[in-house]
Amino acid sequence: MPADHIAITFPDGSVRPCEAGVTGQELARSVSAGLARQALAIRVNGEVRDLTRPIDEDAAIEILTWSDPDGQSTFRHSTAHLMAEALEALFPGVKFGIGPPIEQGFYYDVDPGDRKIGMEDLERIEKRMRELAARDAAYERQDVSKADAIRYFQDKGDEYKLELLEDLEDGAITFYRQGNFVDLCRGPHIPSTGRIKHVKLLNVAGAYWRGDERRPQLTRIYGVSFPKKSMLDEHLARLALAAERDHRKLGRELELFAFDKQVGAGLPMWLPRGATLRETLMDFLKKEQLERGYEPVVTPHIGRLELYKTSGHYPYYRESQFPPMLDARDEEEGFLLKPMNCPHHIRIYANKLRSYRDLPVRYAEFGTVYRYEQSGELGGLTRVRGFTQDDAHIFCTDEQVKDEFKNVIELTLTVLGALDFTDFKAQISLHDPEDREKYQGGQARWEQAEQAIREAVRETGLEAVEKTGEAAFYGPKLDFMVQDALGRAWQLGTVQLDYNLPERFDLSYIGADDKRRRPAMIHRAPFGSLERFIGVLIEHCGGKFPLWLAPVQAVVIPISDKQHEYAEEVAAALRKRDLRVEVDRRNEKAGYKIRSAEMNKTPVMLVAGAREQNDGTVSVRRHGRGEQDTVSVETCADRMLQEIAEGKKRPGS
Amino acid sequence: MPADHIAITFPDGSVRPCEAGVTGQELARSVSAGLARQALAIRVNGEVRDLTRPIDEDAAIEILTWSDPDGQSTFRHSTAHLMAEALEALFPGVKFGIGPPIEQGFYYDVDPGDRKIGMEDLERIEKRMRELAARDAAYERQDVSKADAIRYFQDKGDEYKLELLEDLEDGAITFYRQGNFVDLCRGPHIPSTGRIKHVKLLNVAGAYWRGDERRPQLTRIYGVSFPKKSMLDEHLARLALAAERDHRKLGRELELFAFDKQVGAGLPMWLPRGATLRETLMDFLKKEQLERGYEPVVTPHIGRLELYKTSGHYPYYRESQFPPMLDARDEEEGFLLKPMNCPHHIRIYANKLRSYRDLPVRYAEFGTVYRYEQSGELGGLTRVRGFTQDDAHIFCTDEQVKDEFKNVIELTLTVLGALDFTDFKAQISLHDPEDREKYQGGQARWEQAEQAIREAVRETGLEAVEKTGEAAFYGPKLDFMVQDALGRAWQLGTVQLDYNLPERFDLSYIGADDKRRRPAMIHRAPFGSLERFIGVLIEHCGGKFPLWLAPVQAVVIPISDKQHEYAEEVAAALRKRDLRVEVDRRNEKAGYKIRSAEMNKTPVMLVAGAREQNDGTVSVRRHGRGEQDTVSVETCADRMLQEIAEGKKRPGS
Repeated sequence: MPADHIAITFPDGSVRPCEAGVTGQELARSVSAGLARQALAIRVNGEVRDLTRPIDEDAAIEILTWSDPDGQSTFRHSTAHLMAEALEALFPGVKFGIGPPIEQGFYYDVDPGDRKIGMEDLERIEKRMRELAARDAAYERQDVSKADAIRYFQDKGDEYKLELLEDLEDGAITFYRQGNFVDLCRGPHIPSTGRIKHVKLLNVAGAYWRGDERRPQLTRIYGVSFPKKSMLDEHLARLALAAERDHRKLGRELELFAFDKQVGAGLPMWLPRGATLRETLMDFLKKEQLERGYEPVVTPHIGRLELYKTSGHYPYYRESQFPPMLDARDEEEGFLLKPMNCPHHIRIYANKLRSYRDLPVRYAEFGTVYRYEQSGELGGLTRVRGFTQDDAHIFCTDEQVKDEFKNVIELTLTVLGALDFTDFKAQISLHDPEDREKYQGGQARWEQAEQAIREAVRETGLEAVEKTGEAAFYGPKLDFMVQDALGRAWQLGTVQLDYNLPERFDLSYIGADDKRRRPAMIHRAPFGSLERFIGVLIEHCGGKFPLWLAPVQAVVIPISDKQHEYAEEVAAALRKRDLRVEVDRRNEKAGYKIRSAEMNKTPVMLVAGAREQNDGTVSVRRHGRGEQDTVSVETCADRMLQEIAEGKKRPGS
Repeated sequence: MPADHIAITFPDGSVRPCEAGVTGQELARSVSAGLARQALAIRVNGEVRDLTRPIDEDAAIEILTWSDPDGQSTFRHSTAHLMAEALEALFPGVKFGIGPPIEQGFYYDVDPGDRKIGMEDLERIEKRMRELAARDAAYERQDVSKADAIRYFQDKGDEYKLELLEDLEDGAITFYRQGNFVDLCRGPHIPSTGRIKHVKLLNVAGAYWRGDERRPQLTRIYGVSFPKKSMLDEHLARLALAAERDHRKLGRELELFAFDKQVGAGLPMWLPRGATLRETLMDFLKKEQLERGYEPVVTPHIGRLELYKTSGHYPYYRESQFPPMLDARDEEEGFLLKPMNCPHHIRIYANKLRSYRDLPVRYAEFGTVYRYEQSGELGGLTRVRGFTQDDAHIFCTDEQVKDEFKNVIELTLTVLGALDFTDFKAQISLHDPEDREKYQGGQARWEQAEQAIREAVRETGLEAVEKTGEAAFYGPKLDFMVQDALGRAWQLGTVQLDYNLPERFDLSYIGADDKRRRPAMIHRAPFGSLERFIGVLIEHCGGKFPLWLAPVQAVVIPISDKQHEYAEEVAAALRKRDLRVEVDRRNEKAGYKIRSAEMNKTPVMLVAGAREQNDGTVSVRRHGRGEQDTVSVETCADRMLQEIAEGKKRPGS
């Protein structure tokens, strides 16, 4: 290879000699014109760089397009600079904070001085961005000395950039310029603005400079940017759907839950329909758990500080707990609102002598626990200060760990299937073999347990990824993740092996050899908290719950008040078969009542007019599907009960 | 009437002139020899006196026998003096505190110096009492001056009586003497010790002088005394039964609940069987409530102090509450563990605009609340620091009050019937017309409400007594009382009308006249707390719960391990029909397993041997009744389900 040549290794492993100073753009073009058109950045020996930047050393490279997350980030970041250029044109003298790419788009925090930038300005900013993009200006990288950089922003009068410069070292400072706009930026960027065609600015919000509420409040402008119009359209449609399905909005509209300032932020109160939904879900879970050998227990919502000193939760973690109840009346008798259920379940286990023949012991409780989330973090059901865990604690021998994990996975798949979640996976968090002394419980025990979890996952056909070093010091764990109908991933609950609390509480059982042995303990709340899970569920189904779970399963709609009595008879007959039925006796037209039931997302509407009354039938309409047929009340109940039974048994994917 | 004569009015209203100084004994004898034999004391113008004390003024009198509670008290009190005489004979120099009659018997607190009196001494004390009683010594009343009384007890060296004397005024001090024993006592007593024949000393316990733990600990000796042997025998049998049925003992034996020092005193933890029992009872109540138009809600276990300031529960009642959760992190954000559910339900009511057409609104919640009972008062389920109320709050118009009370009474009778309580009554607490300004809500409203409650009680056929002046300032109420199988009366829950909280929270609805109106509010928890109610229920049925409520309804007993598989099939078939069934797979003889199921009070035992396996049948044994017949598994399930359905519908008496 000539002296001024370097070796470029492509992702397929092929190595090609190139002249030193070759650029990503040239390399892309050398592969195909199509790749050159789609290329956004290049990964050089692991570092993402501008396509236009010369490569001077031997390198493994990868041309990044939209299909790579780093390609997307670069594209979004360059769009943020384009927006900044447009802002400078429209609001001369505007000052700039930071403007990073984010998961779905980008933002820029700006200080427009004594002007205001509001939602009403977004359209003309977008327009100017399109005009600037049409000029197809190149993004040019430039190394600058700290002194020059400071001088530049002093001249410009931008104190935010000057403050950012303070933390940077001379020799590691770069500017990026496109058209008339220059920014302090480490890059990388796409080659030129012409690629940016499908931009939408979404929102304007206030944001404190550096997230500090004592610093000035800047204006944060959010936007999204895609290389294709179809992608933008799809994204906007998805956002509209998500807004429509927002569980806070649906919770209000469907009267499921409410928050109240006097009761306290983050403390949901379940209204009758929400309480019915919640209880139906709990009953279903309880039945599935009973079938799998769980035993119910009920424990108080408080415990003595003593209990939490033993468990190690007090006086640590105070920041995330409600303050203890302390009183001069009896100093020994300080209490804590329980932040978790395990210490109580442990004390039940310790309440009598256990033999290996009694294991596994599985104590289940829908236990309501309280944690002190900061009030800025509260909103809807996904982050609350009081929540009910679908909690259970399993005390077992090491040999039983695998079957217990399988049991939990099967339960989880059954329930997710019944709720129409078809896309889920798991993550196994393992110990870090490089850092063995960190972990409690002995190397052999850990390896056996991790292998047991792996096998349990494989034997239940669950898709899982393994994460080395992500285990807590007290045991490996399995986390569940679902993807909802909007394509968003949600982390649900956890199955956590614990070698620590059995030690702290000195738990034991008598082994087959008559010796005292230490049980393993498994914490499991596969859905995490009911509140959060119901929040996810509401958005997943847009409030259209499966029939078995709908708080009101059917509404009977009398066509005129002559059918009121018959409608009540129909409702009574269905209720006798444990269906949840209401009668709409309002003095309104049937069409109005049907629309109202559609709005309420009631799955079944049973219209009853003179003919139905005469024949002992009902006209059945299903939500979103219009009229279907007219059947006897018994047939209607049979069908609904069959659908309910099948719905609860729907298998997971 | 001669000048030295007085007019004696008898209970039948007849008036007889008697000589002044006539005694109760003479009056009793004048009625009949039988009454004279049974007479224990006399009520003279409302005051209970010795039968031997002369009557000097005109008087309405009543001869008191055992059938009168004051007659019983006098008899018990005299027995306490007899025991004291025996103690002085057996433990010379013993000092005496107080020795009153109590509900079922009597006690005396004594200081035996450096000797000890224990359970082992009770028999010889009883024996000495019988010997002394055989002497038939009279109880003699004697007025003494304070100086003489002090001198007497100084000579005797009894510092306790001397301390009691300090509080007494000269001229109002009497001694009673029988045989060799003299006591400071205001009486009255029975004529002589010969009446006392059937005594049993039951217990010895420590008791601080004057209930003050800084004072000396005395020895308290408990006893009972009856005029007839049959009464004593019956009482002792009842005590034995009550001890056997003690819910704390049965709770342990049947593994229903447990207390734990680390968790905290008075905070029950429900073990699997107890949790199942509790949940079955709750499910039954929920269903009955749903049928009566209640709507479920679920609210958090804490609320901001602000909420309880509005309700008036804070900062008052602090003694009976857990200390508030206060923290420097956010002073506004103090929280209280909820001592009741009403403020939360009120905030749900206030969450939207209400019309008269929406009323009544009935919010039901099995709400767990916490109150800080003093630790000396804790024990078992009847007094706890955390308990779950069968709570509901009804918001209605004044006109709806009567129907709402009827609705609650009917619910209560249904549930009590299903639990085999056949003897219950109610008490209506009314306002005091003499003290009108004390009450909130207006005279007309009160009178209308009290009349509504009266009518509701009458129309549901419930037996009730009325108590004038017992109403709280904020509304009249109805209390439920049941008598259990041991003849003990238990106060259950309350239906309480409330005109106060709707004011404090400024609740309203829009009336038919479009005007803003104030709803009435009804608090109702007809069984009070689940914990206490289950405690009463356990003692009522001695742990033999009705089939529908039994935590384990049937146990399948394979005769040998060859039938283990068949036994599991039987259990699975029954579980499929929602029966709670276990299999006893222990390596024991069938007879042992049957005895064990009898001990556990399992209602149904299904024995499965080779023949049953062959025929697909089970041999059915019922608890306490032995073998009954051999039937197919389906027939067995049908019968059990029929008994369950009938049991839940058993009408109250």
